[in-house]
Amino acid sequence: MTGPGDGSPSPEIFVLGLGLIGGSLVRAAAPLGPVAGWSPSPETRSAAAADGFTVHDTLDETIMRAAERDGLLVLAAPLTAFETLLTRIGELAPTARLTDVASVKGVVADQVESLCPSARYIGSHPMAGTASSGWAAGSATLFDGAAWVTCLDEMSDLQVWADVAHLALRMGSRVVPAEAPAHDEAVARVSHLPHLLALALAQVGEAGGSLALSLAASSFADGTRVAGTRPELIRAMCEGNRKALISAMDDVLGILGVARGSLASTGSLQKITSGGHEAREAFDNRYAGLTELTLSGEDLLDQLISVGSAGGHVTAVEGSGAQTQVHVRYPDEI
Amino acid sequence: MTGPGDGSPSPEIFVLGLGLIGGSLVRAAAPLGPVAGWSPSPETRSAAAADGFTVHDTLDETIMRAAERDGLLVLAAPLTAFETLLTRIGELAPTARLTDVASVKGVVADQVESLCPSARYIGSHPMAGTASSGWAAGSATLFDGAAWVTCLDEMSDLQVWADVAHLALRMGSRVVPAEAPAHDEAVARVSHLPHLLALALAQVGEAGGSLALSLAASSFADGTRVAGTRPELIRAMCEGNRKALISAMDDVLGILGVARGSLASTGSLQKITSGGHEAREAFDNRYAGLTELTLSGEDLLDQLISVGSAGGHVTAVEGSGAQTQVHVRYPDEI
Repeated sequence: MTGPGDGSPSPEIFVLGLGLIGGSLVRAAAPLGPVAGWSPSPETRSAAAADGFTVHDTLDETIMRAAERDGLLVLAAPLTAFETLLTRIGELAPTARLTDVASVKGVVADQVESLCPSARYIGSHPMAGTASSGWAAGSATLFDGAAWVTCLDEMSDLQVWADVAHLALRMGSRVVPAEAPAHDEAVARVSHLPHLLALALAQVGEAGGSLALSLAASSFADGTRVAGTRPELIRAMCEGNRKALISAMDDVLGILGVARGSLASTGSLQKITSGGHEAREAFDNRYAGLTELTLSGEDLLDQLISVGSAGGHVTAVEGSGAQTQVHVRYPDEI
Repeated sequence: MTGPGDGSPSPEIFVLGLGLIGGSLVRAAAPLGPVAGWSPSPETRSAAAADGFTVHDTLDETIMRAAERDGLLVLAAPLTAFETLLTRIGELAPTARLTDVASVKGVVADQVESLCPSARYIGSHPMAGTASSGWAAGSATLFDGAAWVTCLDEMSDLQVWADVAHLALRMGSRVVPAEAPAHDEAVARVSHLPHLLALALAQVGEAGGSLALSLAASSFADGTRVAGTRPELIRAMCEGNRKALISAMDDVLGILGVARGSLASTGSLQKITSGGHEAREAFDNRYAGLTELTLSGEDLLDQLISVGSAGGHVTAVEGSGAQTQVHVRYPDEI
């Protein structure tokens, strides 16, 4: 099984959940091949159908249709709904091709292992979103240029990984292979922690009263932007990544605590300003000097994990089985 | 002395320092009336003169010309140069009309009181900037729509305040009256603290390695943007506002520490997410429901301070002396 590269068909896509991410996925996938969606909300189903997309009326119908067609089931519901969905998939389509788009990967892998152990599962996470939510907020271009994590370990099903990678590539994303724990540690630092800092900064600014809010300019506006995200969405992703997030919080508390002590005792902020400036430059230059390479062979899964870990990403997948070839861009230094 | 409102002339402007802020000030003020600049750097003076602006060759010449014309001297140099500049102004033009555009106001007021006690001084702070610096980075539109703090207390010279307010208004800024200590406490929260959080976040992200930087999306990019500012500029403004910044840092450390404890003990981030979301909504709505009013009378200075403190700003100044009328927009609730 492969994708458009060699003319063989990609699997049909069945999206469970039609909010911002699921709704964007349906819109982006529809021009590329068969895709159907389902939502527990009759209003959302009606809105998606009225917009011209294929929508099934019930969860069971969607799962059974996916099993008949050997399609790819995509969990795009809130994390709190996964237990219900996975239980039903385990009953109706136990060996389904399966992925999800949740922002934490370790806990989902554990749930799949427990509730749907025979599924051909590859966790994924498109690093895209806005502060809006719901079907109406979706956009066919949401994933264009975004990083899209695809989770791998030594036991992964390469064929289903290729299905998910094809889907993400066709939507214009950079496909980043990663092990689930490494994903969770990374997003704690670059996604979940930024939300907590934005929430804290918004409160410190507001505590300064009307004058402070009146004087707030772009540094405050940018630094608090994601505090506008719905609180329940922030809670779901942050609380679902508790261990890694606590570690990231301890790091930031340590850096700020040292800076506070230095400012109080010596009046100097030399360390935090120079270190932070260099770190921001490393971020700005993160894609500089990527080179191209084609991966193949028995240890392909390990090679993919190494590429993602080094800051590289997948640009194309060709062939299938032992003949699978994966084109990547990766930093020179690995 | 008043301004364009009643046909009497605004004072000539003399800008000491031609970096981002001073250079933007010269560019924005030149079409409105006489303005001259000076920089200690021969290259900067040549560049500004080549761009068609009036530039004096020496500091002494600039100060004496300002004294002759009863012009408004604007300190737009780095804070570290203020002692030298104020000493010379105290010698050559001890009663000059004087303002500055530094990002801290309490320490500057103390320096003026010490080195130039007879100057007719009104501190000011345009809340505008970019991560760039130097003459070439300046722009005539930098102040358009920005808040421009003008410092007042019960002893302030209303006429010089009106000069500074006119200048800021003619550049399209919202003029916010505030006492110097209130300004410093406010900017610690909404400007200096956001820089420290950006610097800390950049380091925590980089510590996650290449995978973390590869996955970083808009929440990280926005949250670390101002970490790209030159470290020496961040140090100058933050270290110059030590006391107020330590208080703001303690507030943010407290909020994050409580959230860390709650996440570790109960797994919940309810408090920080709901509080932070409400605070960001307060920021988004900070200009909602402003109404117009005209202020005048003996306690005009006190009225202006109240308007700024409540989140309001000045839109026009008319008349002079006891006949001064100030048009403001202020929140309904004061």
